[in-house]
Amino acid sequence: MSIITLMTDFGAIDEYVAIMKGTIFSINPSVNIIDITHQIDPQDLIEAAYRIESVYKYFPIDNTIHVIVVDPGVGSDRSIIAVKMFDQIFLAPDNGVLTLLLNKAKTSTIVRVENSKYFLKSISRTFHGRDIFAPVSAHLSKGLPIERLGPTLYENDPVRLSIQYPYISENDELIGYVILIDRFGNLITNIDLECFQKFCRLDMKKTPEVWIGSSKISDLAQNYQSVEPQKPLMIIGSRGYLEIAVNRGNAGSRFKSKKGDCVKVILSKSSIDRRK
Amino acid sequence: MSIITLMTDFGAIDEYVAIMKGTIFSINPSVNIIDITHQIDPQDLIEAAYRIESVYKYFPIDNTIHVIVVDPGVGSDRSIIAVKMFDQIFLAPDNGVLTLLLNKAKTSTIVRVENSKYFLKSISRTFHGRDIFAPVSAHLSKGLPIERLGPTLYENDPVRLSIQYPYISENDELIGYVILIDRFGNLITNIDLECFQKFCRLDMKKTPEVWIGSSKISDLAQNYQSVEPQKPLMIIGSRGYLEIAVNRGNAGSRFKSKKGDCVKVILSKSSIDRRK
Amino acid sequence: MSIITLMTDFGAIDEYVAIMKGTIFSINPSVNIIDITHQIDPQDLIEAAYRIESVYKYFPIDNTIHVIVVDPGVGSDRSIIAVKMFDQIFLAPDNGVLTLLLNKAKTSTIVRVENSKYFLKSISRTFHGRDIFAPVSAHLSKGLPIERLGPTLYENDPVRLSIQYPYISENDELIGYVILIDRFGNLITNIDLECFQKFCRLDMKKTPEVWIGSSKISDLAQNYQSVEPQKPLMIIGSRGYLEIAVNRGNAGSRFKSKKGDCVKVILSKSSIDRRK
Repeated sequence: MSIITLMTDFGAIDEYVAIMKGTIFSINPSVNIIDITHQIDPQDLIEAAYRIESVYKYFPIDNTIHVIVVDPGVGSDRSIIAVKMFDQIFLAPDNGVLTLLLNKAKTSTIVRVENSKYFLKSISRTFHGRDIFAPVSAHLSKGLPIERLGPTLYENDPVRLSIQYPYISENDELIGYVILIDRFGNLITNIDLECFQKFCRLDMKKTPEVWIGSSKISDLAQNYQSVEPQKPLMIIGSRGYLEIAVNRGNAGSRFKSKKGDCVKVILSKSSIDRRK
Repeated sequence: MSIITLMTDFGAIDEYVAIMKGTIFSINPSVNIIDITHQIDPQDLIEAAYRIESVYKYFPIDNTIHVIVVDPGVGSDRSIIAVKMFDQIFLAPDNGVLTLLLNKAKTSTIVRVENSKYFLKSISRTFHGRDIFAPVSAHLSKGLPIERLGPTLYENDPVRLSIQYPYISENDELIGYVILIDRFGNLITNIDLECFQKFCRLDMKKTPEVWIGSSKISDLAQNYQSVEPQKPLMIIGSRGYLEIAVNRGNAGSRFKSKKGDCVKVILSKSSIDRRK
Repeated sequence: MSIITLMTDFGAIDEYVAIMKGTIFSINPSVNIIDITHQIDPQDLIEAAYRIESVYKYFPIDNTIHVIVVDPGVGSDRSIIAVKMFDQIFLAPDNGVLTLLLNKAKTSTIVRVENSKYFLKSISRTFHGRDIFAPVSAHLSKGLPIERLGPTLYENDPVRLSIQYPYISENDELIGYVILIDRFGNLITNIDLECFQKFCRLDMKKTPEVWIGSSKISDLAQNYQSVEPQKPLMIIGSRGYLEIAVNRGNAGSRFKSKKGDCVKVILSKSSIDRRK
């Protein structure tokens, strides 16, 4: 049984997602539809880009179609693309929401979705989720090769977001930022494990501290309970990114943080002093 | 595979919807249950009436059962009805929530749901979603003819809400109101395309302006991007109703609107002047 | 088709639940996954304990696996247990979240989940929902006997929450508290029907009154409409517990209540007087 996943910014109140599902089942009654989330901040492409990167690899290969409808340009002349990579298919507006995956994929087949044979008959200017994404994904889930959807694009054709990767400042600080704040108030940064480890190795005599605003967190923890309740900690989270958390508390409200806030990691002598 | 859709005002926090699903699967393990929304404002029949009208037609015919549990009268002597119309089945309290569909259906079969053979054995006074709607819908999804549920009613028997359709005032204004505000802050009005077009044709030399409170919106757009970011616009939305939106913004908060607010469309000379 | 239900405190915004679902489908593509709720207050074991008790019995026996991931101790040395009781399987951290069910079950088989053969290959310290609960539940749904997961425990081995059952005070009041407030603002107490009836029978010449803070509610209703709109009432709700509600209103905001608030039932002469 094929799987279609849905990630949108449609929220949970409106019936938009259900309309997409009804449209899909009208074409392929036996597909399995899974909600990733519909709570992407309206039109926040960066958030959507990181969330789909976090989730895609846990779905089966060969028969999963990921549909991402975070689409501020709906009804304008932006394109829709279908991409085959990682043995899965991704269907999204050509607005950069797939940037992290395209940057990572070794090989990919990319087509511009143009063949209206696989759309609903009447196309609105405001709801391509229903009129294009839903029916196209349903046809893909029945085995339609993506090449039938339209012309093949070159790897560099799709729009890419300019992703802010972490960097080392003139003061030898590792500079990142808060991508997401999750339900527990954990601050998920754009600093991944590899990058964090590389930075820490620059001076093995020192230990890392992370700063968010004027607050310093020195505890690099293996799990949330390794510090006292209500104490903050840094941790490499389940996504593989550096997170700032508070044991049995909420780092987001503790540090009054919001998405986009700057995070600095510095290598500190004082910490190593404490260990002597 | 049959489909049961669920629309309730039970929200996402409580386990009430899951209890309905468990009850359904206990009777028909192979049905496909789809959530329309569970975030109807508690006991808001008008909202539910418009949402089911928006969504039903995207679901397959012949094997879809729509279950609507927005039911302020649960446990009182209100009836439950099952209606076959548009080649689908609708199961709802007899409180008017199906009014828009009943007004539109050319033919329908309506029964009062009374046959306790298809209910749970013990019926509470507070949760008919679990005790009646869920098991009855499960039996329907297995092919039970609705006539088995109870006596057939006449077309005029079910309770109808008094729907406020748009009208033309003494000042030649088209008067409507805000039915819903969606997640993007778009104000969905009760003025449908046909009604809007008829009104505009009353004087083809003029162009429409829509007023919400003391704010005027003159741009009738084809899509959200056809005005500058943060500019308001009016648009015939994907439901087929006039909407007020703000490109990359939130009309609800911009105009401090709430459900029920009055909306006026006027035909303006000044606009046609500007076009000269 | 087997059913896996999911109850977590992961919320609806993040993709954590979807990651669990992808992991499950990668192992058992034909299982039916049902969300109970993901809105448990972060790390609130008592709330989770009452909700799973409310919902489990409406799911089919023999092929339902309930997965509860409310897990403040993730990554510490807390265990995970699988329990077979009521002809269903429950998979949860050994933190007491199954207390109400274990207290009630006449027979149960309990194992400590240790066999990493059924886990993901790499186990994080922060997301056992993905790394252990999801794959183990998927294998169970394919028929794996729970005994394969690890050593059998004695009935008294699992951690139990100290559940506050209602009691009679020195002043002959029945003392309970608010377990949950549902979406409608109904206050669900820990006073169950049996306990309430026993208390009322202590003096059949009197009638019960319930006090929440300094507010008294005298109407014991059969349904929400049996009092005037906006009037409060007490009712044995669909869960079988005493609830305080307001007809077409919100008891939570009316009485400014929160989870944990004390509720007193007293037997009152005055009420019986009124009946003369």
